[in-house]
Amino acid sequence: MKRLGILLSGRGSNFLAIADAIAEHRLDAEIAVVISNRPDAPGLAAALERGLHAISFPSQGLDREIYDRQLIEGLRAHHVDLICLAGYMRILSGYFIREFPQRILNIHPSLLPAFPGLDAQHQALEHGAKITGCTVHFVDEGLDSGPIIAQTPVPVLDQDTVESLSTRILQEEHRLYSKAIALVLSGNYRIDGRRVISSML
Amino acid sequence: MKRLGILLSGRGSNFLAIADAIAEHRLDAEIAVVISNRPDAPGLAAALERGLHAISFPSQGLDREIYDRQLIEGLRAHHVDLICLAGYMRILSGYFIREFPQRILNIHPSLLPAFPGLDAQHQALEHGAKITGCTVHFVDEGLDSGPIIAQTPVPVLDQDTVESLSTRILQEEHRLYSKAIALVLSGNYRIDGRRVISSML
Repeated sequence: MKRLGILLSGRGSNFLAIADAIAEHRLDAEIAVVISNRPDAPGLAAALERGLHAISFPSQGLDREIYDRQLIEGLRAHHVDLICLAGYMRILSGYFIREFPQRILNIHPSLLPAFPGLDAQHQALEHGAKITGCTVHFVDEGLDSGPIIAQTPVPVLDQDTVESLSTRILQEEHRLYSKAIALVLSGNYRIDGRRVISSML
Repeated sequence: MKRLGILLSGRGSNFLAIADAIAEHRLDAEIAVVISNRPDAPGLAAALERGLHAISFPSQGLDREIYDRQLIEGLRAHHVDLICLAGYMRILSGYFIREFPQRILNIHPSLLPAFPGLDAQHQALEHGAKITGCTVHFVDEGLDSGPIIAQTPVPVLDQDTVESLSTRILQEEHRLYSKAIALVLSGNYRIDGRRVISSML
């Protein structure tokens, strides 16, 4: 059974969607550990309620690389095969990223490369996009720039607010992330330049 | 009846799709004039075959603004209400654009703001995007940067080449452009910042 490490800072709704997918046998994996940089993250409490290993490593005031070394130890101790960011609001050091090459996934609420960075839904609305969506990608050392594994489009409605748009994108995130994790865990893909291509072809 | 002016440089497949939408009463407008900057553009011959006013203004060697003054005269002489770029491969001067504020539309083969400029389908493939598409937007003085009127997503398939992807996007372009033209001709929209919003709301 492949082992997932989850990093989160808040509610971790994408973590819960992954846990549900596992419970409902839509994703063949187990959650080895959930780590939060915020002790009060509701996602951490939810992980404990589900009987998962949940660790709080407070990050405040710590140097990025020193902190990330702790994080790496925590993940290695739980023998994780794949690291899934689920609303982890702290930039990972290059040191961390190089420790787990093509073993870190993130989900972003836009169709990258459009609207990278913070407040992607607000960016999409302000730009007047009619289609936005969500993206699961490998994490590299750039900002939301790693190879794209999967994307789902979401229409922007004339009456949308940031809240209503974010809610509809989040529903698609919850579907998309587990599918992308399953593909990566299956190993049935290759990376050609920036293209993530099914190796079944 | 609202009058369209079409500018093209090549086959003008989007021009033909507009002409078909008019012929099939899906778009309530008429094509007042088709202008090409290339005398040998197949779209020009197709316009003549359909009995439309078709003009060739060769652009080679002419200063941009001098050329655009000719173009403006040609369009004004035919009393156009809206100008539709359909594969017009020449940059319009600021002078031209300011003559027709929010009266010039373009269609672009990506979900802007992703992949602006030339070879958008190639850019999307190289970037490894899983979703791309097409965009109809007002033309302003930037590169593919004007307010977005309509977009359609198109999935990128693992086996896609630039050709196969371009073909599928083009099918959606042909549907999208007439719908966007109909919205603009109806006048039932307002522009709020960069957002083009139905004024029915």
